[in-house]
Amino acid sequence: VSDVEAHLAANFPAYVEELKAFCRIPSVSTDPARKADVLRAATFVVERLRRAGFENVEKVATAGHPVVFGEWCKAPDAPTIVVYGHYDVQPPDPLDKWVTPPFEADVRDDRLYARGASDDKGPLLIPILVAEAFLTLRGTLPLNVKVLIEGEEESGSPHFATAVASLRNKLGCDLVVSADGAMWRADLPSLTIASRGMAALDLTVTGAAKDLHSGRHGGSAPNPVRALAAVLASFHDADGRVAVEGFLDGAVPPDPRIREAIAAVGFDAGRYFDEVGAPRPEPLPDGETLLTRQWLEPTLELNGIFGGYTGPGTKTVIPASATAKITCRLIAGQRPDHVFAAIRSHVAAHLPSGFSFEFSRHGPGTTAFALDPELPALAVLEDILGEISGRKPLRVAMGATVPIGTVFKEQLGAPTVFFSFSTSDEDYHAPNEFFRLKSFRDGLVAWARAYEALGRRIK
Amino acid sequence: VSDVEAHLAANFPAYVEELKAFCRIPSVSTDPARKADVLRAATFVVERLRRAGFENVEKVATAGHPVVFGEWCKAPDAPTIVVYGHYDVQPPDPLDKWVTPPFEADVRDDRLYARGASDDKGPLLIPILVAEAFLTLRGTLPLNVKVLIEGEEESGSPHFATAVASLRNKLGCDLVVSADGAMWRADLPSLTIASRGMAALDLTVTGAAKDLHSGRHGGSAPNPVRALAAVLASFHDADGRVAVEGFLDGAVPPDPRIREAIAAVGFDAGRYFDEVGAPRPEPLPDGETLLTRQWLEPTLELNGIFGGYTGPGTKTVIPASATAKITCRLIAGQRPDHVFAAIRSHVAAHLPSGFSFEFSRHGPGTTAFALDPELPALAVLEDILGEISGRKPLRVAMGATVPIGTVFKEQLGAPTVFFSFSTSDEDYHAPNEFFRLKSFRDGLVAWARAYEALGRRIK
Repeated sequence: VSDVEAHLAANFPAYVEELKAFCRIPSVSTDPARKADVLRAATFVVERLRRAGFENVEKVATAGHPVVFGEWCKAPDAPTIVVYGHYDVQPPDPLDKWVTPPFEADVRDDRLYARGASDDKGPLLIPILVAEAFLTLRGTLPLNVKVLIEGEEESGSPHFATAVASLRNKLGCDLVVSADGAMWRADLPSLTIASRGMAALDLTVTGAAKDLHSGRHGGSAPNPVRALAAVLASFHDADGRVAVEGFLDGAVPPDPRIREAIAAVGFDAGRYFDEVGAPRPEPLPDGETLLTRQWLEPTLELNGIFGGYTGPGTKTVIPASATAKITCRLIAGQRPDHVFAAIRSHVAAHLPSGFSFEFSRHGPGTTAFALDPELPALAVLEDILGEISGRKPLRVAMGATVPIGTVFKEQLGAPTVFFSFSTSDEDYHAPNEFFRLKSFRDGLVAWARAYEALGRRIK
Repeated sequence: VSDVEAHLAANFPAYVEELKAFCRIPSVSTDPARKADVLRAATFVVERLRRAGFENVEKVATAGHPVVFGEWCKAPDAPTIVVYGHYDVQPPDPLDKWVTPPFEADVRDDRLYARGASDDKGPLLIPILVAEAFLTLRGTLPLNVKVLIEGEEESGSPHFATAVASLRNKLGCDLVVSADGAMWRADLPSLTIASRGMAALDLTVTGAAKDLHSGRHGGSAPNPVRALAAVLASFHDADGRVAVEGFLDGAVPPDPRIREAIAAVGFDAGRYFDEVGAPRPEPLPDGETLLTRQWLEPTLELNGIFGGYTGPGTKTVIPASATAKITCRLIAGQRPDHVFAAIRSHVAAHLPSGFSFEFSRHGPGTTAFALDPELPALAVLEDILGEISGRKPLRVAMGATVPIGTVFKEQLGAPTVFFSFSTSDEDYHAPNEFFRLKSFRDGLVAWARAYEALGRRIK
């Protein structure tokens, strides 16, 4: 055990108190009423960075909540990393489902229960505490560390790319290490090396110019709900895979080690459907197929639909229009522009005659994120996780879209590795979010070793 | 010209003033803020009936707005009719589209513009004014007349069947003559002899127990919008006809003269699509086909749909459920119970595995209305219309559901003929509703002749 690890262990009870204080700030970024609290959380991070020994610490204003920046760059011959995290949290609703209030921070069974404890206040505090330990004991760090902590991750990071662009000159680095993300399972260490991209759109089908009376016109007038249903029903094949011609153009195969991970995880399809509360389909797909589709296949998902009368009782109307809200999750190699065009052509080909449609994109879309499997930093972090857990870590993919990987790649030219000690079962978007204190302890050791190892070999 | 017709013509300017006064009462039955005005309109009818010479005139309370009853039954050897109409009106919105305010009652180009002028205040006033003329000139009527004017027709007549049932002993009659309804075209007299029935339901498809994140779960979790779309897309064949097995069971062919009317009407399909503001489908169906579907074929219409996120922008959710609101228009012989069962079986057969559904009926449904083509009263009224217009009247069907025909048949055992002088182009559910004063004049003559002719031959 190194001096740093011994110091971290000795101070652990104080760290828990600090995390509790951090978690008591209700920094809900989507709630305008919490604006002052969100700012208070940013101030907490600023002060903690300064106390740890970081320099040039500042709140960087954005059109929304500020980004916090700090750096320690006194190792001119060593590599440089940017540490990413976020100080904002999800809304705590429904409040009545919490065993203890979401912003009270209660420790039970070696877990800290609070909104934001796992996502991302606990995990982001770790690299700061570790840096402080190095600077306290040795007066130096094994590598240069820049810290960038945002306050709008739970609102979709609307101003983050702009903030990174404006800080580009300060953020030069060899690698971004994200303290946000999640391990797949508590007993199975994992590193996320791929996540899906996104293309979002609304599709509106129109028949008549206004709503018509269904008694007077029923049978003769065009019904856009029926036409939209026909188009939506044509988007997938019987197995539920996207059946849009050209949709998969350019897609590249994933790192083969992700397929190994899918086999190793032992995903239980029946249990999955039970957990989400859905009827088990017949025939039941096997777990590997299901997890492959969640991690490695693109989707065309219908997020919402509306049209005509949607209130109680009956209104005998033939709607003028109906709209589907759609998002696609993309895999590596799919280009959002091409995906939009393929869907648009598919709609034009499948819409029954007698209707018009409007196709409106929400933004340019996001390409998928995929890390080079040969990246040395990946092997370094895998070794560390393996040492601490005694198990070989998995290389996993995420179904969700993590835009920061793409932002950092585009703005800084640097790859992003995910090294969070959050675990995906810690209810971070639900009541009773918690952070395992064992993960907190393991994370401190892991980041201490990561600073040293990455200082020696990063690319 | 009879004494009665001469009297009606001489008094016509005064009748127009009376109708204007009636139309100035904003009796919008669906608007709780108009409750006092609706009552005021009921009082107007009560007083007008008394002044005309009707007896036992009263407001009959219901759980909603009152029904007005009155009778003149002093011709013991003559037949008896019930005259039906409604004193309530549609809401006037959008107000800014009216050339003159909806409750001002302005005469332009021999038309009276006001909300309710055509539907149904003008047409219902006619049989009252005609009865008054007979009683003034002759002290008697050619037949017994009972008048029943409701105040909730534009709200779907929720309490009308109950009111008729409670008045059953007073309403004994040989025939109901409705002053509500509409002629097909101003230059083409018509009698409505059939209208479609109704079966209404909501269909909700459920996947998971709650909304899921589409990044985390997309590809593995069931999407009920997709499943609902698949079911909805299976309800019709490529021609748009209902493809639900058993849906048409029991349906009986219509009066052949309705098919003659469809041919005679010269329905222009291209102009129809232009008028409703929809793209013309290719190939364009011919007009007879289209009107046959509107009048004589049943429908399964999607009145509304909703599920998941329906706000602006994007929310990456896999909805837990999605709902379609459905009404079917039924033709003679279709039983609502059987139709509900057929649709339910179809849904069960076409819903993909891995979903559940809920099927909720709105009430028991309404059977279609179809008049016996041999009913003598029909021929009597046809002859009168033919005399006045110089053209042979058409026997037409309505796509809409007219529940009063069924109510009167079930409660009183009497058939209902529609003898309204409203015309279907008079914008009675839109801004700038008007009533042709020519129709008002023709209607007075026609009802005068009808009282005499029906007094001689009714069944």
